[in-house]
Amino acid sequence: MALDLSRLLAEPVDARCKGFPYAAAPMPLREVGRQGWNVLRGDCPFPVAVVRRSAMQANSAWMREFTRSTGVRIAPHGKTTMCPQIFARQIDDGAWGITVANVRQLDLCVAIGAKRVLVANQVLAPLDVARLATLVNRDRALEIFFLVDSLDQLAIVDAELRRHELVRPLAVLLEIGYEGGRTGVRSCAEALALARTIAASPAVALSGIECYEGLLVADSDRDRARVEELLAGVRAVAAACDAERLFAGPEVILSAGGSAAFDIVARDLPLRLSKLVTIILRSGCYITHDTGTYERLFERVRERSGEPWRSAPGLRPALEVWSQVQSRPERGLAILTMGRRDASFDADLPRPIKWFRSGLHAAPASAPAAWQVVKLNDQHAYLRVPEDADLKVGDLVGCGISHPCTTFDKWQLLLEVDDGYTVVEGLRTFF
Amino acid sequence: MALDLSRLLAEPVDARCKGFPYAAAPMPLREVGRQGWNVLRGDCPFPVAVVRRSAMQANSAWMREFTRSTGVRIAPHGKTTMCPQIFARQIDDGAWGITVANVRQLDLCVAIGAKRVLVANQVLAPLDVARLATLVNRDRALEIFFLVDSLDQLAIVDAELRRHELVRPLAVLLEIGYEGGRTGVRSCAEALALARTIAASPAVALSGIECYEGLLVADSDRDRARVEELLAGVRAVAAACDAERLFAGPEVILSAGGSAAFDIVARDLPLRLSKLVTIILRSGCYITHDTGTYERLFERVRERSGEPWRSAPGLRPALEVWSQVQSRPERGLAILTMGRRDASFDADLPRPIKWFRSGLHAAPASAPAAWQVVKLNDQHAYLRVPEDADLKVGDLVGCGISHPCTTFDKWQLLLEVDDGYTVVEGLRTFF
Repeated sequence: MALDLSRLLAEPVDARCKGFPYAAAPMPLREVGRQGWNVLRGDCPFPVAVVRRSAMQANSAWMREFTRSTGVRIAPHGKTTMCPQIFARQIDDGAWGITVANVRQLDLCVAIGAKRVLVANQVLAPLDVARLATLVNRDRALEIFFLVDSLDQLAIVDAELRRHELVRPLAVLLEIGYEGGRTGVRSCAEALALARTIAASPAVALSGIECYEGLLVADSDRDRARVEELLAGVRAVAAACDAERLFAGPEVILSAGGSAAFDIVARDLPLRLSKLVTIILRSGCYITHDTGTYERLFERVRERSGEPWRSAPGLRPALEVWSQVQSRPERGLAILTMGRRDASFDADLPRPIKWFRSGLHAAPASAPAAWQVVKLNDQHAYLRVPEDADLKVGDLVGCGISHPCTTFDKWQLLLEVDDGYTVVEGLRTFF
Repeated sequence: MALDLSRLLAEPVDARCKGFPYAAAPMPLREVGRQGWNVLRGDCPFPVAVVRRSAMQANSAWMREFTRSTGVRIAPHGKTTMCPQIFARQIDDGAWGITVANVRQLDLCVAIGAKRVLVANQVLAPLDVARLATLVNRDRALEIFFLVDSLDQLAIVDAELRRHELVRPLAVLLEIGYEGGRTGVRSCAEALALARTIAASPAVALSGIECYEGLLVADSDRDRARVEELLAGVRAVAAACDAERLFAGPEVILSAGGSAAFDIVARDLPLRLSKLVTIILRSGCYITHDTGTYERLFERVRERSGEPWRSAPGLRPALEVWSQVQSRPERGLAILTMGRRDASFDADLPRPIKWFRSGLHAAPASAPAAWQVVKLNDQHAYLRVPEDADLKVGDLVGCGISHPCTTFDKWQLLLEVDDGYTVVEGLRTFF
């Protein structure tokens, strides 16, 4: 099911998007990669967010190989990038479907021809439920799943669905949570009671069990045990529902999300039921990876996964934000033309990884490890450098970021570049 | 100089923007306020960002009165909202011009007919400098100002400008900073040396002196003294430049930014020179105000300002993010359908101020003070409530935010509403 980007690629983009050169005329999105713009040459205004094509391709291949060899499927979380062009590549690379966080994001996927979308969240607003009914009624080939975690939610959904004539019930996954966590039922007994009510509803069909383990993972062995415990809970509920014949359809979906412990999911979630079981990972961040949180967590994934994963090349950071030194007001301090509106700051501050001075460098040099972004304002970054650092007003600095989701959402247009930083495609996002 | 929004208002918006109903056809921006959508009725998908028209109008009137009575002018910082429709109202309300943070933002202002724009930042990238030259050469009525804080920056600007035939020199303001601060020269001697070099350059003209006091303000008396000291530095440099006849043109601009101590600026910055002196405030956040940082800081403004400001109604929070309770997974916990992609979290977490249950409420009720957002994920908020709180799955919660800039930049379309939460205009932003 290849996605259809033709309408999107024909839409105009213009200099109101950050990163698009002022003097360039508005152009269809598909033309952005044909202009020969080079970021290091200063063809695009700073700051710019770039995605390195070679790294993104390697990451997509890595995950394809990982899922193939472990026998699980992936519905990459689209909320990470909200970029249909990236969704299309993920589908081309064998993704089972796309995951999204809400009905608006789902709508965007359906508009470009996605046929299998998992809304990894509770849907309940009448407007949202009505939209699901409309979409499902409009296209028999469209498979949509959403999460249910309470009888209250189910009652609201059922009430709205009574106002619609459905061609088939809406597919839901029951969400399992844990004490102190986010959404999801907290006990097996509660889960079973809810599963029975879902199974009895004519408007919805129980298609599987779901959890989100991502928030449990922070590098420690204790976290690993908690992830395993959560997954065991999903299996237990799935087995109980199977025993009671509560699942609708020929297949049961078991799914867990996150980009920090997908190896544990792939190993622990599979189980044998009376119906075919499909295991769906929902990792989103692997596609660009990062220079921070996921970089650290991925090392644990490799350690846990043994060979060949431990020795083979792993995921690579693909996302960088480039800006310019606008001031060196004190020795040891450089102010950059980027701020909290341009780069993630919720997990870690951006990390300077490269720098470039026109005339001095032919290609970006590695930034010294001592360079450190210590603070962000809305439009500025404070870069601490050694007192004798050779960094001048006008130099370019490339920062890696930690947590791709919160950098993507700051850009309507990211520039995909080759290894020489020539723009090969403009990537539109929809946040 | 009224701004021209006709092209913008004719541009289509569609359901790819958060807050726009899925089932509504794409429509010109001007039509959004004519649909009769009501946020509380659930006509728009959650989360939504709303701006309360009555509060925004009151804030604009407050600032008009404040500047009129203190004899200063304002060039509101456009980076706060990046909303041309709001810029137009600020100009209609007597603003001297618009302030922006970079050339891309300037370009957007010029495109809608702004004739006076202050880039409150160092400009130096060749692409940026070239754009300034193009814009100034294209329109003799256009006044653009930008900041210079180093000889290195000036040399880069001069070098680029030698490649252009300018109809007139570019107007610059010299930025004064302080030790431990952001940009800006750190000493009076350094400032004067730079001012002399600017005055000697054929490509740029020294039009005034500038500082940004906003980062010095955090509620304490010590901060107040530091603001006064910084402003004294601006006055001293201005007087010295005036004595040396370094200012070009018939007028000298003295400007300071920020929304936290504009009263001190209005009181302390004016001085008598051999030329007409115009004092320009650059506050941006006053237009929507907030429920947090600026709410606290504004109380200090009122205390310092004496009567009538102390007793008269002050600025009001206009910006709210509404979302829905999607889960009540534990007693004392509600999960909301909004996250760090929807509301500011750099200063404080969003504060629940209102709630609404269809069928129970005719209008939003005040949220109990004990309700507290304690954590955000990308798409979720964790709301702690007392164990016996009457808050159900499906209820709506309206949050005030702290620091408007970082909420505006998360929305391409904000919904301006009347006091009954009916949408009266769609506000487009360009981040």
